[in-house]
Amino acid sequence: MSPYRGSAAFTDEWKHFDLALDDGVATVTFSRPDKLNALTFDVYADLRDLLAELPHRGDARVLVLTGEGRGFCSGGDVDEIIGELQKLPAGELLAFTRMSGTVVKSMRDSPLPIVAAVNGVAAGAGAVLALAADFRLLAPEAKFSFLFTRVGLAGADMGAAYLLPRLVGLGRATELLVLGDEVSAERAVNLGLASRIAEDLPAAAEELARKLADGPALAYSTTKLLLTRELDLDLGGAIEMEALAQALLMKSDDFGEFYAAWSEGRSPAWSGR
Amino acid sequence: MSPYRGSAAFTDEWKHFDLALDDGVATVTFSRPDKLNALTFDVYADLRDLLAELPHRGDARVLVLTGEGRGFCSGGDVDEIIGELQKLPAGELLAFTRMSGTVVKSMRDSPLPIVAAVNGVAAGAGAVLALAADFRLLAPEAKFSFLFTRVGLAGADMGAAYLLPRLVGLGRATELLVLGDEVSAERAVNLGLASRIAEDLPAAAEELARKLADGPALAYSTTKLLLTRELDLDLGGAIEMEALAQALLMKSDDFGEFYAAWSEGRSPAWSGR
Amino acid sequence: MSPYRGSAAFTDEWKHFDLALDDGVATVTFSRPDKLNALTFDVYADLRDLLAELPHRGDARVLVLTGEGRGFCSGGDVDEIIGELQKLPAGELLAFTRMSGTVVKSMRDSPLPIVAAVNGVAAGAGAVLALAADFRLLAPEAKFSFLFTRVGLAGADMGAAYLLPRLVGLGRATELLVLGDEVSAERAVNLGLASRIAEDLPAAAEELARKLADGPALAYSTTKLLLTRELDLDLGGAIEMEALAQALLMKSDDFGEFYAAWSEGRSPAWSGR
Repeated sequence: MSPYRGSAAFTDEWKHFDLALDDGVATVTFSRPDKLNALTFDVYADLRDLLAELPHRGDARVLVLTGEGRGFCSGGDVDEIIGELQKLPAGELLAFTRMSGTVVKSMRDSPLPIVAAVNGVAAGAGAVLALAADFRLLAPEAKFSFLFTRVGLAGADMGAAYLLPRLVGLGRATELLVLGDEVSAERAVNLGLASRIAEDLPAAAEELARKLADGPALAYSTTKLLLTRELDLDLGGAIEMEALAQALLMKSDDFGEFYAAWSEGRSPAWSGR
Repeated sequence: MSPYRGSAAFTDEWKHFDLALDDGVATVTFSRPDKLNALTFDVYADLRDLLAELPHRGDARVLVLTGEGRGFCSGGDVDEIIGELQKLPAGELLAFTRMSGTVVKSMRDSPLPIVAAVNGVAAGAGAVLALAADFRLLAPEAKFSFLFTRVGLAGADMGAAYLLPRLVGLGRATELLVLGDEVSAERAVNLGLASRIAEDLPAAAEELARKLADGPALAYSTTKLLLTRELDLDLGGAIEMEALAQALLMKSDDFGEFYAAWSEGRSPAWSGR
Repeated sequence: MSPYRGSAAFTDEWKHFDLALDDGVATVTFSRPDKLNALTFDVYADLRDLLAELPHRGDARVLVLTGEGRGFCSGGDVDEIIGELQKLPAGELLAFTRMSGTVVKSMRDSPLPIVAAVNGVAAGAGAVLALAADFRLLAPEAKFSFLFTRVGLAGADMGAAYLLPRLVGLGRATELLVLGDEVSAERAVNLGLASRIAEDLPAAAEELARKLADGPALAYSTTKLLLTRELDLDLGGAIEMEALAQALLMKSDDFGEFYAAWSEGRSPAWSGR
């Protein structure tokens, strides 16, 4: 989404998840199925770095997150993260919590729309990663659990206490984050925590990602970023930001293309510029 | 709602919509039914000016917005707005997007409660006008579509990306603004995007508007304005603002009238003062 | 929740409601059942003072609010508050509205999770007290009514216009606060205004309070306070606050206890430290 390249090379091989690229759609698949895709420090670091380079790689206009096997992502691995954290000094703990927070911040700040295809359990940090996406599509067996307090930690992790009330309201967010109870796919949809349940989740995720990749990318991207920013603006600032953004979009190729296509009675051929 | 008049005369004739006044109820009816009440630059300018003078005209305590014919408001006219915008320089585009943003800002800042009686399709800017009202009553055939991205523009238009997440949550707002999908009347009510469906919409809108016009206008107006402002305040500032506002209202004629009426076993005769 | 004591003695006897303490659960029972537990100036003052001392008394880890008899709390007593307010000068009115606002502020700022066990009507200020709790459990006959405008006052009272939109969205909050209409228990749950309806409310409230009192109190408390604070932070500030808080919690006894218990195949024995 940005044409500006610097000296840094792009990463050739992501070692801690699978990355697939298909005509503008980047798909991260968490790939520790025997652990329900529990996170390790390495997975976090790869997510941090991928989110940093993805907007200027030039080969992706949408990002999909999904999991291999029965789980989406079961959160921090009990052995490889929770056990290790017991031994770390304060400064290294903070370096870890800041890294995980950076992943969520980068997802919300990314110009790419992000789709979470939640194929099974999304627990702890896995639930927050789903929360930080723009769209959540669920397999019928998907479920969410913000189970942080069950391990003695705060339900406020990686921005969960900022994001969840803005999706489902303060009362329901309090229940889910303080108690860590499980949320079924059906309840998640009813609460506004997810868009819908898809019987064939891979097909539904592919269809949505394709639409986002082939559509007016600048319009989609601007909408997503203004949604992110305007949660933190007041009414006057938000309206001025939208006036500036929309005036810019009115000078975009895609807005001209819409009108040309409409005048000629054909479908627009979006360039995303 | 304000007794202070300046030198400027009030407008005698609104050329680009119908304005009716009935004992405190001002009703704007969009009146291009053959175009599903598509907006023109002139309609926006008249809305901007009406909203500016309405609070000090003295003859209106509530504003109703509705449409003539099958549509409520189908947004910017493809010929008269979208076509024209293709030709404008950047500064004039910004003057337009700021004018349309001002309409929404003025609706939210108006001391008058505003009722959108959505009689049919509310699309694009028409959907945002409905969103900026305080109450949305729907005909069974009403529907919403924030279709901006379908013309290559940002779904963040006139404050939509500020308002919609605060009505229906961030997840659902993202879906509606990024994808521009249509929302039926029933789904709109379920999402909290509208109050209810009325089989007889004109009667329901008249009943609500009459109640707002005949009730304790200062109490209604203060409630509406504090709802607007407190979206942008922190908890401490909000509670202090409410303490100040309520202490003032306790010195109002209507609060005294309530207690007198209650003591005498009769209904209060509200003056709105 | 705080070990720091000053010179001030704790209050021996609360004269204007019943306070019971049971192994970490403090229960306030409004006790004017013949008046549906209408509030007096004295009840407000006792709430203000109890909320100030509760966090450092050391004998309470959760607070329950409930009512004796048919009502939860019917709001300001018409004779003892509304009648008296008619006579007060501006400064004393403001002292009253600030006191009532302080009660809500202290509830939201309290490190103790607060459960409202809404056993009947919660009206006016009674509805706002329920709103300021973290959890709302309802008897089947519970109902809410933010009836301020019906007495000529603003629906924005004690922070209601800040809190309600953040629980149920701006559109529904506008309806409820401007019009003051009654909300049934069932609708309250559907709107996200309450967690659930319990046929046996005292048992359900006791169960939830016991869980909160016996669980990882520092984790619960931190989650609640960050939910409160992050409503007023931007995304970046919220994520940094969570990173700092979670790094601290990773140094807590309870996080260590979780891992030890998990390693030993037993349930954790939470100390709340």
